[in-house]
Order: sequence, then structure tokens, then C-alpha cells
Amino acid sequence: MDIRIQKIIEGLFCLEDMREVYRGALPTGLSPDEEAALGAKLGELEGLVGEIRAGTGRPRVTQLAGGIALRTREETAINIQPIQAGGRLTPEARKALALWGDGYSVCDACRAPFRLDRITKPPLAAFHEDLAAFVGMDRARVVPGARRGFQAVTSALVGREDWVLLSSLGHYTEYLAVEQAGGSVHEIPADDRRVVTAEAAAERLDTLVRELGKPPALVMCDHFDYRDANEHDVRGVARAAHQYDAPFLYNGAYTVGVMPVDGKALGADFVVGSGHKSMAAPAPSGVLATTDEYAERVFRTTRIAGDLTGRTFGAKEVELLGCTLMGGTVVAMMASFPAVRERTAHWDGEVAKSNYFVDRLLEIEGSACISEYPRKHAVSKVDTTGSFDTVAKTHKRRGFFLQDELSKRGIVGVFAGATRAWKLSTYGLSWRRVEYLADAYQEIAEKYGLAVAGA
Amino acid sequence: MDIRIQKIIEGLFCLEDMREVYRGALPTGLSPDEEAALGAKLGELEGLVGEIRAGTGRPRVTQLAGGIALRTREETAINIQPIQAGGRLTPEARKALALWGDGYSVCDACRAPFRLDRITKPPLAAFHEDLAAFVGMDRARVVPGARRGFQAVTSALVGREDWVLLSSLGHYTEYLAVEQAGGSVHEIPADDRRVVTAEAAAERLDTLVRELGKPPALVMCDHFDYRDANEHDVRGVARAAHQYDAPFLYNGAYTVGVMPVDGKALGADFVVGSGHKSMAAPAPSGVLATTDEYAERVFRTTRIAGDLTGRTFGAKEVELLGCTLMGGTVVAMMASFPAVRERTAHWDGEVAKSNYFVDRLLEIEGSACISEYPRKHAVSKVDTTGSFDTVAKTHKRRGFFLQDELSKRGIVGVFAGATRAWKLSTYGLSWRRVEYLADAYQEIAEKYGLAVAGA
Repeated sequence: MDIRIQKIIEGLFCLEDMREVYRGALPTGLSPDEEAALGAKLGELEGLVGEIRAGTGRPRVTQLAGGIALRTREETAINIQPIQAGGRLTPEARKALALWGDGYSVCDACRAPFRLDRITKPPLAAFHEDLAAFVGMDRARVVPGARRGFQAVTSALVGREDWVLLSSLGHYTEYLAVEQAGGSVHEIPADDRRVVTAEAAAERLDTLVRELGKPPALVMCDHFDYRDANEHDVRGVARAAHQYDAPFLYNGAYTVGVMPVDGKALGADFVVGSGHKSMAAPAPSGVLATTDEYAERVFRTTRIAGDLTGRTFGAKEVELLGCTLMGGTVVAMMASFPAVRERTAHWDGEVAKSNYFVDRLLEIEGSACISEYPRKHAVSKVDTTGSFDTVAKTHKRRGFFLQDELSKRGIVGVFAGATRAWKLSTYGLSWRRVEYLADAYQEIAEKYGLAVAGA
Repeated sequence: MDIRIQKIIEGLFCLEDMREVYRGALPTGLSPDEEAALGAKLGELEGLVGEIRAGTGRPRVTQLAGGIALRTREETAINIQPIQAGGRLTPEARKALALWGDGYSVCDACRAPFRLDRITKPPLAAFHEDLAAFVGMDRARVVPGARRGFQAVTSALVGREDWVLLSSLGHYTEYLAVEQAGGSVHEIPADDRRVVTAEAAAERLDTLVRELGKPPALVMCDHFDYRDANEHDVRGVARAAHQYDAPFLYNGAYTVGVMPVDGKALGADFVVGSGHKSMAAPAPSGVLATTDEYAERVFRTTRIAGDLTGRTFGAKEVELLGCTLMGGTVVAMMASFPAVRERTAHWDGEVAKSNYFVDRLLEIEGSACISEYPRKHAVSKVDTTGSFDTVAKTHKRRGFFLQDELSKRGIVGVFAGATRAWKLSTYGLSWRRVEYLADAYQEIAEKYGLAVAGA
């Protein structure tokens, strides 16, 4: 690791310690002892700046309180972990987190009716409106992860006698949200390309409505699924749902925040997105957006009352349990939002990089792409059973040899030991980094005697 | 504001920008352009360090992306906002947030069975065990806020025909969690001291069980309530609940993380705490702890299966919807934990400071303490209708005069315009700061001609 990265981190820590001196001081100014403490830290910072300038020095801080390591993989390596790429924070989000991280920070200027989405300082109210517009819906709320968005919807719409139709490639949290609400699930089969079609949805719906005697309480489908990142016909599934007047939930965990999403144009009654998966926000965060029609049910306000006191709870929304993300998490999400909105316009470029990498991987003889090809997403599942896994069979490190070789080249995020089917994401990497990544795989292939087309 | 605070913040931002250069670079090192960008930022940082040393300079950054202000109230003022004090981050938490803020950061080394509480790098598994021990229970999970802990319990235990007994001074999210689960609520009355007693709980239970024909599905009580921060007889309420074999949920939003809590000794079947309220953690965070007995119900693993695919979801816990806090939020909570554990041992000192402040306020003639007195908590509700409000009646700024005067003295966090009943917290303030705070109130009183005993 470039020592300057370590020193940049130590600089951040030093400034946090300086900040802490002020947090203990009187508003009238620092005491002599506090001045001395600040001065000592400033001296340390000057030393660190000198070390950064010279590129010298040794690590002084090697872990955080609680035995937590310093996480530097985004600074020292190319991280291709499939679920992490879209949630990497922007520098704006990191700055916001630094200044708004304290517990209930956004509640400084909370006024009646005491609801997160009505706070104007910081501009949460405007952010909520922007979010709704961003996904082409009427109203939006922030939630602690996409799964809590599913839960709000299933809890509001799905009873114990109800059934829900979902994609057989759906995320596990969709199934759990139905289980938690007490409903039952039925699946839309994927075709042999591992894609969910409008026809499959319509056919399955017809059969099930006939069998079960009523339409589903909800239909859900991931636009791109988490297993192969294949694109599914969400518009067609929505249309099939609407044939039976069933509401359609668009799972945009892999789309909202990385590509343009227009919920109403797709026929969505609900759009769910994930902050930490695709909106450059800290976990847990996400968005649940809906139409004016369904907002009345899913964002309904409380009606419960104390039986002795008659207490009621105003404008609090039941399914959200009042406020959701009350501090740095939502402010970081907001701070990333201008960059996130901008980046969705460049989705084609991200898809081009994804295809470039997969093409270069396919040049390694025996490699295959499990995901649909050409790629329409930055996440891909590939199969190197016929290439890297043949090396693993006789290598003393077995499947770990590939990880070792990647690691030497500064590439992290592949599942440890995997040399058969594995996933990666090229999202957000510059062309230079994608080329470096593809070169690295081909170099490793050549080192172990695998044939590489054009090499 | 001391310009050095501004410059410390600008320094943090500068280092984040330097870090970002590495995030776009190849693992082999910086390109000439990147070196130049880093150098420019380093030059800026050197300038900032010089400005901190000299105490000079002008603000260069005045807001964050998305129109978000720089939040500096913890550095520039004494913040007595009642719900924020226990959630103020430790410097350790801020450092952890800086390094682990990226989306799914804790998933780097996630292995089968793919659950947050089993991850060992960072040491989440050990943290979960520590958390359970910390509150004197068998098992613990982190949740996105105390309310999500209530929800997990009500969702698991409370059906549509069920009723729940809760404190009439309970937090609104307890009522909402029951409403969300579809149950009904009945309240334990508070006595004229605004305290919930064991006798009141037992009596109400006897009456209701007779009337409703069955015991409650759950009994909940806040140890200290959010309205007056009075202490309630949670041990006695638990005992009354157990007379009818009803489980007892201890709401420790105002205790877990600030004072010692031994759940089993109190008779709790569930202990719920809030990270952003009392554990120096970012929002949304919290803890839900229970016994081995109830863990089987509330932390049960999924049993749903896909009807076509037969897909099942292993060890995922239904009420938690799988994983909960997957990034910086939980790591910051962990980084604060050693300090949080330590600080609970000094609760008596915090209570002493609270009483000191209230006593000094009561010296201002016409002031009263609405909360039970002497104080047993750092949060207090006071009544200055007979003192500061008499000034407000004729002041041209009305009730805002008090806020103006406090603000001039660097005191923030009082509800804007409030001069009758209002709340504050002295939690975590040094003695020097508490004295300054009390002096400020007495000074303002004297300035406006209010009588101050002993003055």
C-alpha cells in the first residue's frame, strides 16, 4: 500500500481528534489545556502532511476501537464485489457523513407535524419530492433498505389468506417480506435464458387465479435480478398484473441510482430502490415510491388511540413506524443524490464497460458467460470451469490461486476460492481500470498456460 | 465561530478529496495527472494547516452537495436537545464511519450462512455476543432503530385478535408497532406523579384479562419515558405480566447505552435499545435482545419456499428480513461500544449533573420541574411559565427571546420559542459545561429582572 493512503487516513483521524477538543469546550473558547491538546494534535497533523509530501513514514494507527480493521480496499485496490459497487460513497456523501453522522442530527429543526419527510433544514422535504420524480412516481419515502420497502407494501396489502406472485429469480427479501406478512408466494417461472417474460407471468396468473379463486394481492418483479443480473420484462409483468387489478411492485435494487427508471411508464404501482446497493449511500437505506392511489394505503397515517388517555399520534405513518432514517444515513444519501442523478445518464457507458470486460474474459478459452449476453448490466455471472478451474484442480492453493493472483494485482471482491461460477461488477470503474482488470485476467490465464484468443 | 473549526472541517473535506484520487487510480500507482491532483489538494491542506496554526482565514466551503448546510453545533455550542445527547458520536465512531461508510462495507468477508451476526471480519459476531451480555440477555440482534425492535416482537407475537398492555406514557412507536401488527392496545395508567407502578399494572391486567377473556400477547414498558424521563417500575410491571405468562418487553431507548441494564434481573423477555438515542451510534440503529426461549419465535429462520423452484433461504431470520445494518452504521456502533460500555458505569455522575442544573434552574423564581424530582435521569422536563414566560409576554420577540439569549451564549437545542414547558438533556456534558449552562440561565433571568435565589 502507498504509505500516503495510510497517512491520509491518519490525517482524517487527527482532524477528528481536533474536532473532539471543541466538542468538549465551552462556547466561549478553548481553555489553556484544550489549546495545548489542540496544538499537540495540530503538530501531529503537520507531521502527517510532511509524510504525505515526502511519501515516507510508518503506519501509526492500525485499527479502530473495538478491534475493527482499517478498511482501505477502495483506495488500494479495484473492488469488483458484485453488490458493493453501486453503494460506494461519493466524496460528497463521505463529507456529509462526517458532518451529520451524530445520531438524530436531522432533528435540529424538526417542527410540527414532526415527520422526517417534512423537515426543511436540511432539505429533506425537497429531497423526498426529488426522489419521487427521479423514479417517475407521485410520492416517495426513505426506508432502511429496499427490504423494508417490500415489507411496508406486503404488510399493508397482504393478509394471511392472500397470495403474492413474484419472479422465481426474485431477491430473497421479497420472499421473506411475504412470509413476514403471513401470505403465500407463487412464482413466475423463468425461461431457459433465465429471463422472466410477460407471457410467463400472464400464463401463471391465469392458472393461479383459476386455481386459487382470487387475484394476487401483489405482483413483484426485479428489473434485473441479483443472481444473473438478467433483464426481465417488468413492463409486461406489470401489464399482466393489471389485467387482474393487482398492484405491481418494481424491484429496482439493481437499477434505481444506476440507470434511468420511470416507474409509471413501466406500469409500476410501487418502485423500491436500495441506497446501499445502487445509490451511493450508507446502509441501511433505500426508497419506496408509489402513486397517490396506493400512498393512501401504504403511507396511511396512524389511527390507533390509547384506551385510557385517548392519545393519538398525528401524522405518523404506520408502515414506516414514524420516521425512518433520522441522521447521517439520509443526509449522505442526499449528498450523493446530485451525482447519482447525473450518473444514471451514463448507464450505456457502464454497460459498454461490462461487455468489454466479459468479451475479454471470453477470449480465455473455456470461459463462458452465464448471464444473458451481450450484457445489459454492470453485474455479470461468468463460468470459468473450463478455464481457471482446470488450473485449480492441480494447484496447491486449489481455487484460491486465482484470488491470490488477483490480489497480487490489486483486484479484490471475488468470492474466495471461486473458480467456477462467480459474479463481479464493473460498475463505476473508469475505462483505464476496466482495461487493467481485463488485462489482469488474461495475464493470469497466460501464466497458467490457458489459451487466450488473439494473444 | 472559531475559524479553526471551519478549517478543521475543510481539512477533513480536503483529505476526502485526496482519498478519492486513490479511489479512481490503478492499483499500480498514481498517474502523472493523479499525482498532480493529489499534489494540488495537498497544497490546499498545507494552507489549511497553516490557517489552523495562525487562527486565520475565511470559510471556503459553506455547504455540502444537495444544498446541505455544514452542521457544527456540537463543535461551536452546547447542545441540550433532549433526544440527541446520547447519540452524539464518539470520535471512534466518526473514524469508523469514515472508513466503513461505503454501502455494503461489512460484506467483504461474508461467508455461509451469510448472516450479519456471523461475520467475523469486522468482528460483528463477537459484537452481537457482547451486546447480549451488555443488556443481560441471551441473544441480541442489531436493528434499524428501537422501533424496528418493537416491530419484530409485535409482528412475531401479536395477532389481529390480540391485545397488548403498554405504559400510558410509552413512546409512540410502541403504539404504532402494535397497530402495524394489527393488535389492539390497552394502557397502564400513570399515577399523579406521572409514574407507572407495579400495582397499576397488576390492577389493570386483572381487570382486562377478566373483561377480554385472555391475557395480553405482550406487555411493554419504558424504563424512563420520553415525555418526562420519569422512572417506571419495570421490574414490577414484568412481574405482573408474568403472573399471566405474558412476555415483557423492556423499552430501554433512554437507558441502554447510558446506564447499566440487566434485562434478566429486571424480568425482561425482550430488551430494546436505541443506537442513535443512547449508544453513540448513527441512525437508524438499535438493539433487540431476548432469551433463548423467545429467540425461537422472534429470531426464527425462514420456512417459506418457492412453489415452482423449491427455493429456500437458509438461516435468514424472518422478522429481521435477513440482514439489518450492513455497513458503516453498525461498524460505528461497534466502534463506540467500548466507550459506551465504560460510560454506563458513570451514570451516577450524569444524574448528579442533571440535578445540579435543575436545582440552579429552580433557583430562578417561578420555575418548576415537571419531571419527578430529584432527577434520576439526564433528560428533564421543566416549566418556566412562572419565570421566563412572564418575560416572553411583553418581549417583542415573544418566546423567542430566550432562544436568542441562549444562542448568544452558545447554547442550542431548546425547542424554538418555548418558554413554558420544555425539555433538555445534560447528558455527556462536562461539569464545566453544565455550570456554564446553569450560569447562562441565571444570567438571562437576572438580565430580565427575574428573582434568582442566592443571587
